[in-house]
Amino acid sequence: MRIAMIGLGKMGANMATRLLRGGHEVVAYDLNETAIQAAEAIGAVGARTLDEVAARLPAPRVAWVMVPSGNPTEATVNALADRFAPGDTIIDGGNSNYKDSMRRAAGLEDRGLHFVDVGTSGGVWGLTEGYSMMVGGNEQVVERLWPILETLAPAADQGWGRVGPAGSGHFVKMIHNGIEYGLMQAYAEGFEIMKAKKEFDLSLHQIAEIWRTGSVVRSWLLDLTANALAEDEDLTDIKAWVPDSGEGRWTVFEAVDLDVAAPVITMALQRRLRSRDEAPFSDKLLAALRNQFGGHAVKKAA
Amino acid sequence: MRIAMIGLGKMGANMATRLLRGGHEVVAYDLNETAIQAAEAIGAVGARTLDEVAARLPAPRVAWVMVPSGNPTEATVNALADRFAPGDTIIDGGNSNYKDSMRRAAGLEDRGLHFVDVGTSGGVWGLTEGYSMMVGGNEQVVERLWPILETLAPAADQGWGRVGPAGSGHFVKMIHNGIEYGLMQAYAEGFEIMKAKKEFDLSLHQIAEIWRTGSVVRSWLLDLTANALAEDEDLTDIKAWVPDSGEGRWTVFEAVDLDVAAPVITMALQRRLRSRDEAPFSDKLLAALRNQFGGHAVKKAA
Repeated sequence: MRIAMIGLGKMGANMATRLLRGGHEVVAYDLNETAIQAAEAIGAVGARTLDEVAARLPAPRVAWVMVPSGNPTEATVNALADRFAPGDTIIDGGNSNYKDSMRRAAGLEDRGLHFVDVGTSGGVWGLTEGYSMMVGGNEQVVERLWPILETLAPAADQGWGRVGPAGSGHFVKMIHNGIEYGLMQAYAEGFEIMKAKKEFDLSLHQIAEIWRTGSVVRSWLLDLTANALAEDEDLTDIKAWVPDSGEGRWTVFEAVDLDVAAPVITMALQRRLRSRDEAPFSDKLLAALRNQFGGHAVKKAA
Repeated sequence: MRIAMIGLGKMGANMATRLLRGGHEVVAYDLNETAIQAAEAIGAVGARTLDEVAARLPAPRVAWVMVPSGNPTEATVNALADRFAPGDTIIDGGNSNYKDSMRRAAGLEDRGLHFVDVGTSGGVWGLTEGYSMMVGGNEQVVERLWPILETLAPAADQGWGRVGPAGSGHFVKMIHNGIEYGLMQAYAEGFEIMKAKKEFDLSLHQIAEIWRTGSVVRSWLLDLTANALAEDEDLTDIKAWVPDSGEGRWTVFEAVDLDVAAPVITMALQRRLRSRDEAPFSDKLLAALRNQFGGHAVKKAA
């Protein structure tokens, strides 16, 4: 089928490529002319404006929005909605907050348009391995998208599914990322303890490779750990500074809203926050208090 | 080669089976006569006493001890050492504390005997999929064990390796299990949040299945999660009570000893401790304090 890909960044461009390879027609739009030309070079139909996008899609139109979450997604969905007609479908494949997706779905529905949220996992490996997709939206609307979803997925019947109504796709993807935070932190702590155990002179890369086969902790994230350690076991050039892109903190908010204790996911997020503060005021205060009550030495800040 | 398997429980019996299938000769010993007969039935040479074990092994002898950690392992290693001669090797394939393994290695070395510790992962699936093995011990001694290790492993060159001197095998296995605690807790929390989100009426089993292919959180533990949820998505018959077998708490002790912060692994252990206490005194005290300062209602214990 013919679908528009709105946003040709790393994810959007790879998904357009996978769709083209799967025999679909892709109308490719981006703010960046070079990205459009790259898509045209592999067989996509370029579109320079959203009016062109609307014009080059047969009714009922289907557009897959793959732009940063927040304002860019909001603006893009609204701009497309202004150009689309009742019965058309706008898919948000980005990492939007599920509450925004529920609001957008309701807003579009009022205008006779359909909204589908697809939580998409797979990163840069998705092009070759396929994307894991958690789909939220009206059942009949999602059914019409099957050809697209089957092509993007690792296999037609694997790695994707409609999990519930609009919003639920991004909700499940949010939890997926929250779990990811916890998994990553567990590996990170284990390897740090082994690195600190100088007397055994362990090879962290060797251990990661051993664990990849037959062990209980084998996983794709462990495969990536082994890759990273293969390049430099000491990670010398990597700063101990870890960003977060939102889903982890949303997961923590959600757990609190639902009265669910999620200490490990919460702690994994907090460790990321801590990694970005080289001199936390709380640590200064602890040092100051030890000095106050016990006369313990305080290190002067450089 | 010929090797004795001391302890024919679930793990020992499966390992003996895998060794026999791999063309090795196994002298099979257990306290339980039925277990010995089962091993004989599949081709092992039964031994009813440790004297018989020693007599039925060619020099230099090799025995694999697969009994519960702590006193049973201590007693078995000592009893074998009394019957073995200089140059013989005793392998501890159980979940011993690595400090005990270092002590046992030193004690045996004083008597001219060799000690090798093998941290073994794979559980009941090891028979068919092979065992992940982290081996600690003298390099030349371990080299003589390669035929055995290559057969037990998932593949001759995969899933196993000598990671360092005696003790290091159990050390690395301990960390492996500590990581396992963190991974399991991360999945558990994520699925609990999704279960609590009633409005989306999510199928936890479907989501686990989706994630198994192409997602960032795919892993063997997720495969097992999907298995468990396939049987009963609500886990109705499973009590919310989680044991621990030692390696998790040893990992936490080790992290503290090494001045390494490992909050997620620590928290995962603490959640298990908490799961076994239906009325923690700390929660009673919190409720009492809220009543003291704010007159908040207290629920009476039934």
